[in-house]
Amino acid sequence: MYQIGIVKRNIVRADRSATERLAGFGVATVHEAMGRVGLMKPYMRPIYPGAQISGTAVTVLLQPGDNWMLHVAAEQIQQGDIVIAACTAENDDGFFGDLLATSYRARGAKGLVIEAGVRDVKVLTEMGFPVWSKAVSAKGTVKATLGSVNIPLVCAGALVHPGDVIVADDDGVVVVPAAMAGKVADAAAAREANEGEKRAKLASGVLGLDMYNMREPLQKAGLKYID
Amino acid sequence: MYQIGIVKRNIVRADRSATERLAGFGVATVHEAMGRVGLMKPYMRPIYPGAQISGTAVTVLLQPGDNWMLHVAAEQIQQGDIVIAACTAENDDGFFGDLLATSYRARGAKGLVIEAGVRDVKVLTEMGFPVWSKAVSAKGTVKATLGSVNIPLVCAGALVHPGDVIVADDDGVVVVPAAMAGKVADAAAAREANEGEKRAKLASGVLGLDMYNMREPLQKAGLKYID
Amino acid sequence: MYQIGIVKRNIVRADRSATERLAGFGVATVHEAMGRVGLMKPYMRPIYPGAQISGTAVTVLLQPGDNWMLHVAAEQIQQGDIVIAACTAENDDGFFGDLLATSYRARGAKGLVIEAGVRDVKVLTEMGFPVWSKAVSAKGTVKATLGSVNIPLVCAGALVHPGDVIVADDDGVVVVPAAMAGKVADAAAAREANEGEKRAKLASGVLGLDMYNMREPLQKAGLKYID
Amino acid sequence: MYQIGIVKRNIVRADRSATERLAGFGVATVHEAMGRVGLMKPYMRPIYPGAQISGTAVTVLLQPGDNWMLHVAAEQIQQGDIVIAACTAENDDGFFGDLLATSYRARGAKGLVIEAGVRDVKVLTEMGFPVWSKAVSAKGTVKATLGSVNIPLVCAGALVHPGDVIVADDDGVVVVPAAMAGKVADAAAAREANEGEKRAKLASGVLGLDMYNMREPLQKAGLKYID
Amino acid sequence: MYQIGIVKRNIVRADRSATERLAGFGVATVHEAMGRVGLMKPYMRPIYPGAQISGTAVTVLLQPGDNWMLHVAAEQIQQGDIVIAACTAENDDGFFGDLLATSYRARGAKGLVIEAGVRDVKVLTEMGFPVWSKAVSAKGTVKATLGSVNIPLVCAGALVHPGDVIVADDDGVVVVPAAMAGKVADAAAAREANEGEKRAKLASGVLGLDMYNMREPLQKAGLKYID
Amino acid sequence: MYQIGIVKRNIVRADRSATERLAGFGVATVHEAMGRVGLMKPYMRPIYPGAQISGTAVTVLLQPGDNWMLHVAAEQIQQGDIVIAACTAENDDGFFGDLLATSYRARGAKGLVIEAGVRDVKVLTEMGFPVWSKAVSAKGTVKATLGSVNIPLVCAGALVHPGDVIVADDDGVVVVPAAMAGKVADAAAAREANEGEKRAKLASGVLGLDMYNMREPLQKAGLKYID
Repeated sequence: MYQIGIVKRNIVRADRSATERLAGFGVATVHEAMGRVGLMKPYMRPIYPGAQISGTAVTVLLQPGDNWMLHVAAEQIQQGDIVIAACTAENDDGFFGDLLATSYRARGAKGLVIEAGVRDVKVLTEMGFPVWSKAVSAKGTVKATLGSVNIPLVCAGALVHPGDVIVADDDGVVVVPAAMAGKVADAAAAREANEGEKRAKLASGVLGLDMYNMREPLQKAGLKYID
Repeated sequence: MYQIGIVKRNIVRADRSATERLAGFGVATVHEAMGRVGLMKPYMRPIYPGAQISGTAVTVLLQPGDNWMLHVAAEQIQQGDIVIAACTAENDDGFFGDLLATSYRARGAKGLVIEAGVRDVKVLTEMGFPVWSKAVSAKGTVKATLGSVNIPLVCAGALVHPGDVIVADDDGVVVVPAAMAGKVADAAAAREANEGEKRAKLASGVLGLDMYNMREPLQKAGLKYID
Repeated sequence: MYQIGIVKRNIVRADRSATERLAGFGVATVHEAMGRVGLMKPYMRPIYPGAQISGTAVTVLLQPGDNWMLHVAAEQIQQGDIVIAACTAENDDGFFGDLLATSYRARGAKGLVIEAGVRDVKVLTEMGFPVWSKAVSAKGTVKATLGSVNIPLVCAGALVHPGDVIVADDDGVVVVPAAMAGKVADAAAAREANEGEKRAKLASGVLGLDMYNMREPLQKAGLKYID
Repeated sequence: MYQIGIVKRNIVRADRSATERLAGFGVATVHEAMGRVGLMKPYMRPIYPGAQISGTAVTVLLQPGDNWMLHVAAEQIQQGDIVIAACTAENDDGFFGDLLATSYRARGAKGLVIEAGVRDVKVLTEMGFPVWSKAVSAKGTVKATLGSVNIPLVCAGALVHPGDVIVADDDGVVVVPAAMAGKVADAAAAREANEGEKRAKLASGVLGLDMYNMREPLQKAGLKYID
Repeated sequence: MYQIGIVKRNIVRADRSATERLAGFGVATVHEAMGRVGLMKPYMRPIYPGAQISGTAVTVLLQPGDNWMLHVAAEQIQQGDIVIAACTAENDDGFFGDLLATSYRARGAKGLVIEAGVRDVKVLTEMGFPVWSKAVSAKGTVKATLGSVNIPLVCAGALVHPGDVIVADDDGVVVVPAAMAGKVADAAAAREANEGEKRAKLASGVLGLDMYNMREPLQKAGLKYID
Repeated sequence: MYQIGIVKRNIVRADRSATERLAGFGVATVHEAMGRVGLMKPYMRPIYPGAQISGTAVTVLLQPGDNWMLHVAAEQIQQGDIVIAACTAENDDGFFGDLLATSYRARGAKGLVIEAGVRDVKVLTEMGFPVWSKAVSAKGTVKATLGSVNIPLVCAGALVHPGDVIVADDDGVVVVPAAMAGKVADAAAAREANEGEKRAKLASGVLGLDMYNMREPLQKAGLKYID
């Protein structure tokens, strides 16, 4: 159960080097490297295409229609963090806009992931401040009710602990537990290492059927070719 | 209740100068300046990013699968108008394409807001004719049943009177009653006036917690910092 | 009923010249030229804007969470084909990514239409390999269960036979039966022939009301102008 | 634009006799009798099947996550009213439960129509207090921000003035302007008058094709029978 | 591609005895017996719970907002048929109500499956005339544009030929090709034959793990029990 | 991150007496008593109305289209448990039907909560075995890939640990951490204690405005009554 009204100041962030390496692989590869878990739901979409980031999670629990805790969270941001915001109820209001983005960037944040709405999308795009959200809405919010900062929470179906690594790109958002960051980065690197070779083969016309030795298992499974 | 089969020719348009000023503030600021009302539902999305317009409403009530009244409306368009189209039933057909856009532009329209579908999206994007719609669909429509032009109507949850100001950007669409255009523009300007200063402070690392004097109310509300 | 475990090798593709002409008209025009049938559901969206293609269908029936048959299909691709993939159950996993796209392109495919999810969207965009899909998801798939290749199937509500012409652009996806490709291309050309003239008239301020002689039928239908 | 912070006490309710007659016809017939306008969006669903009511509208504008004004509205309810509640933003919280229903019933309300969420559905069903809502959610609300009571508002796409007649059943919700209640009831009665005869004919096997004289227009439209 | 404006009178219906047997097994079992194909999309829902029917398909292609062809179809209904209706565009209007149901029942129809909206739900429920639909809406339709009757069509993602067997219950709707009705009924019967025994074992506390011999394959797959 | 391929046998279940008391209060009251946290998303709906249960969680992590782990979980069920199933990807297949329900009931399970699809809904209703699910689908599943049993997991947005208390009724599903069961039951009882008195007052016509002393705060907030 969530604790309400708490700000945890000292959180253990994932290893910075491992965190930064993970951005390079993208969400799909990191997700594979983790054994296909940790993905947020596919309704989390970037507000503009092309961003690909990684960072350590500062978590925020919001109350519906109230963005007070996003201001509280700003003080907890360190260089390289990504803010992860969830809400105690379904809500698509615009909790975050260009002023908060200016503040977050000044504190060193790399982006925002919010299971709710966002606004000032045009300015955020011009600033190059990436946001993954469930909705876009011009509807503003009040500052009246407490939530919490840096508690473990569920965002878009994924459990996030403060300090976990977040990787986000056009494919979505994935969460890597802080303790596993290095290991997952290694696994992702291993996956990518032989992808270049595979890509070259496929580009030359070699079929995956042959490259992956699929013809025999397909035949065993009963696949029939007809003319 | 809607009157069917009516075209109102003489409508009172909002003050042109106030209307034009409102485009500059964007939807989120105008919505705040109005007291957080007048917003269309967030499922109204632009067909391409980056457009930000304002104009006076020419309203069109459509029948499902029938775009006849969009042709009737063209004659009522004056320089600086935005056409606002709603339908008597849920319908995602493509009511509007590049030929109508060519006509609307020639008449002086700045854009279209339609709670239904639109097509020829690629050409509309190339033309730079902005449309906010509920759907994109290649499915065409017939011209067989009467609706109305320039009656008050509900579009995407917002009540629109002919002549009201419409402001639309990547955040959505907001309606400003014609009689309030000047007052809302002033209120929006007042909001923006001190935003530049706020933005500079936040960019320099000042926290919203301090700039907005939130620390005391947060403490009173019971917020606890833990390590 | 679908046959499972079948790959049909020799399919009759639509006439190449007619197929290629159809890309030039776009989906909305082709759909009109066919009598307003053959359109896939509007939830099929391009992963990036601006692509407009036509090609002959290689069809793939997938099992949920399993992309094995997309590899089998690669071998059946010929220059100018578009792969059309449906799934036996609702599924939004990411069945297709940049490696498969590299292979498909090497085989001559012009793009993919898949009633399911796709991933590596950023790389696919950089490659300029167009995909129309129901979802974007980083969630990968396994290779364990047979489907079929080049059987007639239903994709996003449209019946597709192998060899049919597929036309896809920002407005959606339409299917033209192979035997009708030439006739539909002619009808589309006829539609477009007088569109240039219409566009010029409308751009000069002529109203559709006059150009299409709508005033009399509107009056007969009972339309009333009021001041 | 909505006025916030207003309670209008004296509203003009539609004629009681006409209002009560309208319940007997059901939503589909009343909607036809009005010329096919005034319907709320089909996402408004009853919490249990079988209720069919009519009454005069007491309107409530809510703020997201805040049901304060539902309490304010209770005092304005008179015998035979139906409360119509809309919200300034999309919100699915449970604004209304069995205690409010007990109060509303004591005041004479026949039911509630709310474009938001409702809770205590099991008890409301046992009480036989009908509600049409957009969602069911156990999430409660606060009492902190003003909305308004008895202002004209948009609920689920339909414009409602205080005192208008609301008719609701398993097919949805329709709004009849107060001034038209009698006329619409007459038109609905006329529609139903010959429905009994039609029903008997159809039940005996007579075809609508013959009863409605459709064969000639179908032939003119080009319908072809093949064997 | 669909042919518009056609009514096919002589269709080959599936064997009546096999058709009737299929109702007894329910949709889930029939779907399994067919190899897990032929299911309509899960958004097709019954208007009331508990109906379980089978019958031979009379197909109807509708135009959006137009139910003319449902009247044309009535004449083609024979004892034991189920009418299957699809629309050339997405449309949730109420195409079908109690008068048509009275006529259909008089002609011998067992029910309706419609990828669109339905109305008079309360009366249909009282009549016990089952309908599976995508939506409920009081919005009526016109009778102006031709579709077709008894052509092959796609309904909710499933291809239906006139005369095919339709099985529908609370789990959804499945299509059995006419030529396979007997074989599928036999396969379904075989599936059910040993279900009684299985059910008794499970009810007595035997685990599926043991009854299906899953322990060894689970161990091979690497499942670990921890305390 | 989820561990795959694990079955935890010894879990600490919440106090049985507290667990059983919680069913009596219903989801809305328990949710309030917890401080408005712990609720699953509102898309989790009961397959039939009226069930109201509580029990201790046995958790199951499923792979898409694969219900193998639901069989593994059966062995871990004890009298009074509720099985909570989530899936590593979005999936609406029918993972659970009447045979599994027979087995679960024999093991003592009170019901199932599954963020996926369910089938055999008619038989489950006749059995009175309650299920809360995201979808109903006749589509069956395979038994091929490992998930886990009795690991902490996220179901419909709520974090569930094995042994936590689950309360479910027509309003949805709420999770009470095992350690808090007694305290929450006490808080819920306290809430309900004075509800009877409140209900009686409201039923007699007393307004919430007076009973809750809202008139003064409403006046302070600026509410204006007009005639």
